Amino acid sequence: MIKAAVVGFGNLGRAALLALQKSEDFEAVCVFSRRETEIAACCGETTVRSFSSLETFGEKIDVVLNCMGSADDLPATTPFIAGRFNVVDSFDVHARIPEHIQKVESAARRGGKTAVVGVGWDPGLFSLSRLYMKSVMADAEIYTFWGRGVSQGHSEAIRSIDGVLLAREYTVPVAAAVERIKEGRAENLSPKQLHRRICYVVAKDGADTALIEEKIKNMPEYFKGYETTVNFITADDFLLEHKSMAHSGNVLSVKKSDDGLSSLSFSLSTASNPKLTADIMLAYAKACVKLNKKGEAGCKTVFDIKPSDLFSDEEKKYSLL
Amino acid sequence: MIKAAVVGFGNLGRAALLALQKSEDFEAVCVFSRRETEIAACCGETTVRSFSSLETFGEKIDVVLNCMGSADDLPATTPFIAGRFNVVDSFDVHARIPEHIQKVESAARRGGKTAVVGVGWDPGLFSLSRLYMKSVMADAEIYTFWGRGVSQGHSEAIRSIDGVLLAREYTVPVAAAVERIKEGRAENLSPKQLHRRICYVVAKDGADTALIEEKIKNMPEYFKGYETTVNFITADDFLLEHKSMAHSGNVLSVKKSDDGLSSLSFSLSTASNPKLTADIMLAYAKACVKLNKKGEAGCKTVFDIKPSDLFSDEEKKYSLL
Repeated sequence: MIKAAVVGFGNLGRAALLALQKSEDFEAVCVFSRRETEIAACCGETTVRSFSSLETFGEKIDVVLNCMGSADDLPATTPFIAGRFNVVDSFDVHARIPEHIQKVESAARRGGKTAVVGVGWDPGLFSLSRLYMKSVMADAEIYTFWGRGVSQGHSEAIRSIDGVLLAREYTVPVAAAVERIKEGRAENLSPKQLHRRICYVVAKDGADTALIEEKIKNMPEYFKGYETTVNFITADDFLLEHKSMAHSGNVLSVKKSDDGLSSLSFSLSTASNPKLTADIMLAYAKACVKLNKKGEAGCKTVFDIKPSDLFSDEEKKYSLL
Repeated sequence: MIKAAVVGFGNLGRAALLALQKSEDFEAVCVFSRRETEIAACCGETTVRSFSSLETFGEKIDVVLNCMGSADDLPATTPFIAGRFNVVDSFDVHARIPEHIQKVESAARRGGKTAVVGVGWDPGLFSLSRLYMKSVMADAEIYTFWGRGVSQGHSEAIRSIDGVLLAREYTVPVAAAVERIKEGRAENLSPKQLHRRICYVVAKDGADTALIEEKIKNMPEYFKGYETTVNFITADDFLLEHKSMAHSGNVLSVKKSDDGLSSLSFSLSTASNPKLTADIMLAYAKACVKLNKKGEAGCKTVFDIKPSDLFSDEEKKYSLL
């Protein structure tokens, strides 16, 4: 049994705890949160402690699932944790991944620990799809579509704005662009031409909604440059109509040759985005512990993990070949 | 530049040579074939030699792409080559892969060489899809569909039967089974319930077609247990109507939970099956040479290769994350 802890108890942390509690390979040792008294009732038999007490757990934890938010928390907390524990996070700000890796790498090496960052479906399974597609179809155009679905990262980013009570962002592919690509008629479309972003926001009483909307639309990496719609709604409507955690997406690679069109496509549809992300994090948490035992300290991404390190049943592995 | 040789000059060998000649990363050193005089005119500027002279090439070759047939040739030739050169093959008889790995492993270790076997789309990209899906969705049912399309392996297997002049096999998914799976209504369907096999065969003059049909339908692993149709046609009709090398396929993983259905899907559609297989073999040939330089001798499959070893441009790699 791998002794695992969850840090952060938003949607992802909650899903990770549930997945650990159900798994036969893991023991859910502890949840660490800044809201430890508030969440204790949701954690079943698993201990709940304040984030500040994490350091005192030493040998009791084989791996930490850091489920805090990418926008504000992971850049500081993953390096901190990586100096002390093996850790997996789902850092998802693509443009800042190299910087994040660098910080985590030096902390993990100092501590002799192994970290796997950017684990989820994008970055994660979609990154793998892009790399494999690019490797085997060097001259193909590769496109990523997110949605239709709720992006936890983008919703979280909106919630970090002053005056926002609740927020949910839906990413929606632009249908006409998808068709053009599938028919081999696309020319270097950027992600910003492929998607629209639709936001539903509940503002706090007296908050300046015009200012919130402006802040959302100009948030670098997350919203700036995208066709973004911001809808302010009441808390009642929000709770009634925006509960679904479903998401979907697609990585599509299309190559034209003398013989005709060839394509590779990886697509995903999930009823619960945080549950899928948590499941992926658990798979990489096993590999993380395995690599650390082999003496492979430092910061890894999904690109650095052999597929075989995700799967321990040697006999069954052959049957998947 | 990686110095690569092609062994075997059927559809796959021809596609591999073309891919090597077009690639900026490879130099096509030589084609080895048992029909060296016959094929010389098709190989452009690349040298053609008899298979028996391969051993004398020593340091002149960094990696061999073994493009011979799985049914008869690869089980003997890949171990032979692996004792002397780094080698990649596309061995595709799933049931005999463990045995093949074992033979190649001991030869490669003795020679200090690296072999990657079972490289193509299935086994290969589809194996990776199954392993990743199984790792992140442990309790999901995973199904593989091949087709509609020509299977080189199955066509080759038919051609190995006495009295067969030309042959082509089309694998076709059973549409009703696909629908049941997508709707979450399937119960442990086997590959034999998911596919039909349709064969077009040109018999040699005076051959016993009833005997050929019986041999095809009873060929273990390839046809036995599948709904198989064998059509004998004339050489003229064959050349006119069965030229396409197109193929397609899909690995589908479906999981039911309280929230609803979740699914992961990898699908592929290619205008030229041998060209796609050759492209995948080239990608793994690069990784094979890289691993051998790192001192990692022995027999690998796609499961044992880190995604990052397929891709050498460090900066671009981050952009795919």
